[in-house]
Amino acid sequence: MSALDEGHFNAELENGVKLNRLDLGIQDQPETVAIEDAVKVLLQGLGEDINREGLKKTPLRVAKALREGSKGYKQRVKEIVQGALFPEVGLDDAVGQAGGAGGLVIVRDLDLFSYCESCLLPFQVKCQIGYVPSGQRVVGLSKLSRVADVFAKRLQDPQRLADEICSALHHGVMPAGVAVVLQCLHIQFPNIESLFLDSNHQGWVKAVVHSGSGVFENELADVWGDFLSLLKFRGIKLDRTQMKDSVQQCWCPSRYSSSAKVIGPPNRGMVTAVTSILSSLGEDPLRKELVGTPSRFVKWLMNFQSPNLEMKLNGVACGRMDPLKQNGEEQIHTELCLSFWSQCEHHLLPFYGVVHIGYYCAEETTPLSKSLLQSIVHFYGFKLQVQERLTRQIAETVSSLLGGDVMVVVEANHTCMISRGIEKFGSSTATIAVLGRFSTDPAARAMFLKNIPNPASGGS
Amino acid sequence: MSALDEGHFNAELENGVKLNRLDLGIQDQPETVAIEDAVKVLLQGLGEDINREGLKKTPLRVAKALREGSKGYKQRVKEIVQGALFPEVGLDDAVGQAGGAGGLVIVRDLDLFSYCESCLLPFQVKCQIGYVPSGQRVVGLSKLSRVADVFAKRLQDPQRLADEICSALHHGVMPAGVAVVLQCLHIQFPNIESLFLDSNHQGWVKAVVHSGSGVFENELADVWGDFLSLLKFRGIKLDRTQMKDSVQQCWCPSRYSSSAKVIGPPNRGMVTAVTSILSSLGEDPLRKELVGTPSRFVKWLMNFQSPNLEMKLNGVACGRMDPLKQNGEEQIHTELCLSFWSQCEHHLLPFYGVVHIGYYCAEETTPLSKSLLQSIVHFYGFKLQVQERLTRQIAETVSSLLGGDVMVVVEANHTCMISRGIEKFGSSTATIAVLGRFSTDPAARAMFLKNIPNPASGGS
Repeated sequence: MSALDEGHFNAELENGVKLNRLDLGIQDQPETVAIEDAVKVLLQGLGEDINREGLKKTPLRVAKALREGSKGYKQRVKEIVQGALFPEVGLDDAVGQAGGAGGLVIVRDLDLFSYCESCLLPFQVKCQIGYVPSGQRVVGLSKLSRVADVFAKRLQDPQRLADEICSALHHGVMPAGVAVVLQCLHIQFPNIESLFLDSNHQGWVKAVVHSGSGVFENELADVWGDFLSLLKFRGIKLDRTQMKDSVQQCWCPSRYSSSAKVIGPPNRGMVTAVTSILSSLGEDPLRKELVGTPSRFVKWLMNFQSPNLEMKLNGVACGRMDPLKQNGEEQIHTELCLSFWSQCEHHLLPFYGVVHIGYYCAEETTPLSKSLLQSIVHFYGFKLQVQERLTRQIAETVSSLLGGDVMVVVEANHTCMISRGIEKFGSSTATIAVLGRFSTDPAARAMFLKNIPNPASGGS
Repeated sequence: MSALDEGHFNAELENGVKLNRLDLGIQDQPETVAIEDAVKVLLQGLGEDINREGLKKTPLRVAKALREGSKGYKQRVKEIVQGALFPEVGLDDAVGQAGGAGGLVIVRDLDLFSYCESCLLPFQVKCQIGYVPSGQRVVGLSKLSRVADVFAKRLQDPQRLADEICSALHHGVMPAGVAVVLQCLHIQFPNIESLFLDSNHQGWVKAVVHSGSGVFENELADVWGDFLSLLKFRGIKLDRTQMKDSVQQCWCPSRYSSSAKVIGPPNRGMVTAVTSILSSLGEDPLRKELVGTPSRFVKWLMNFQSPNLEMKLNGVACGRMDPLKQNGEEQIHTELCLSFWSQCEHHLLPFYGVVHIGYYCAEETTPLSKSLLQSIVHFYGFKLQVQERLTRQIAETVSSLLGGDVMVVVEANHTCMISRGIEKFGSSTATIAVLGRFSTDPAARAMFLKNIPNPASGGS
């Protein structure tokens, strides 16, 4: 992590409650050290060697990311908004409403991320904010984004996040009303037991929530209609007549997952470690929404203890096929868009996407079945991983079944690219491994690569 | 600006060259104060009252944004990359290439912004980076983004930016090769003289540049083909056979704009002020690419000196129309997607977008001409503005010509939402003003709003 991140953090301290620690870098602060110790317990619980190269700095990385992701606890909305309220003359009330005096102001498509209070995984948020100014003053547009971020950078639930943003803006800006609509996306890993059965697994849980104050308090108010009209192309399905009745049960997939059977009850030491992380972030682990969070997180994390899955794969990956002859009769077979789910070993955060596999295979030979290839992908995915290694391991395994010429492309989205300081929403990664003739024949590579479909037309 | 920004900045100092200033907040540092003074000179040169409410903190905001946007001068690539190089075993060289040993690694669609060295306006960058690992080590994926940002946060030209990112990664990571492709977008304001003639003005100058090292040094190398294959859906048009010959002339529209005639030679005091800003950012104003920058920036800024345009509008905005009768024969007329260009008075940065105007008009009356409405929009756009006020002023002016019922929606993108700390790429804003019956009749508002087209299908 760069020098910048530390400073970013010091900033909050400077303006927050812990002035006496200004002289300590983030990595020397007791909260950071406590989280690091807890992460070491988790890694050991996974059966990992905490001294292997890729993991050595993982506890510190995780601690910094979690503290960065929960910095909203220390931020004050008043400080953000004050100094950004500008007088704007409006219109006579009898005449109409316009900028500064009643005309609706909207900021659309703010990308945020937050941490799910139920399972500690980050979730993505598209945030839409509207407000109707009053008192002949408007707030600087960027402050709407900053205030939303204060509440996103906490452990959250979508509805509470919307309510808190709405309420804070209402009290900070004192307008005629505030409306907030959030579209939230929570990653949903497949159950490890049903991994090879459920090929239509939906990778995401979606939630659309809203909150309104003042003139937006009544969901049937016409001003909601104006607001939603200007969001209409954002894929937001909010029927105003139903808005009031929407029942919110907890959206987090960890709440209704039934994957605990095989893995058994969570390791108590790991649960205690996660509980201590919650305290270090400034949360109360006894808050009712957080009571089950440590065991849910541990249960989820244990999916990446590799021995669990290794046994499964042994049952699936049947016999080794005969090596194919290297002659003119061979042709390139492809299996595109096999989904994978994995866990970045540098940040203990999910990365996920698709794997494309190409290989040469003689015409008379039966190609490898899709389910076998999918098994190989899952086998190497459900571990603490890095994308480069995942790509190589899949290529080597497929090659060991075929004896030769294999090309693998992995396209992925990394949660760690959005949920830490760099916040590069929309970025993606691709890695390539080439074995045998694919490494020497650019035409073969090009033929395979041109079959890879547009990622924008599929996936999330 | 929130407390956070200041801390963000202190961070760099802490790890940069100016340790002795750790105790000074950014706003007390002499560079910031010097930029503030220069911005005051610019505002006065525009004929503005630097003590009016909306402008009082503008010098400080501009100074902070410019220093934040040029913080790359103080960052060291070595510090970012070191500690994020991970050993990954690769394959036997005879076998092929894969993660850690020759397999291509790509990070796509990184959103960055930079400042144009020719005119000081920010420009947007989509950054695509590929590298081929060697020495059995890979670099953490997020570091590619961080390193790119170090060079983006300087005064730049697209080709130099690509070359610097490429070279820094090559020396920092020591891979077999690095490839960088940048798609850059520079805002291009219309010439104020031809504002009412050129209705097809292209609002953007685009540039696609690339840079390669090691195995990517030769643009005809097959590895470029692999890299470009995995970018194929990104709208990148790079023909490898032509890549070598691409001649780069300066892309900045300020270089080939011919709008100086009317405005005359730039005010010397303002030019000196901009020169001092360059020095305060740590640049050498005598660097050959920067020599003309201060006068180009001043020339551009003077577009927003309102008296210039006021005279023009007087010639265009002909007679006042008779007020329409408020009876059943009236219908809603709309003029959608009138483009506007403006300058945010809080940050001295462009905002731009489209204006939609709806009004009631009796059947027998000729509706207002598109060119008249466009003139009104430009008249209020070419000033130091805020979007809320712009919306109200357009509504009031149209109403004064029609005597009544007007609705105006302004949809905008604000450069200040991407080119400062918050970096919310893809966000947009919308403001509404409603006069007369539009303020009391939700059905009329809804009818007008449903005609507004999808912004994604037009514009940039």
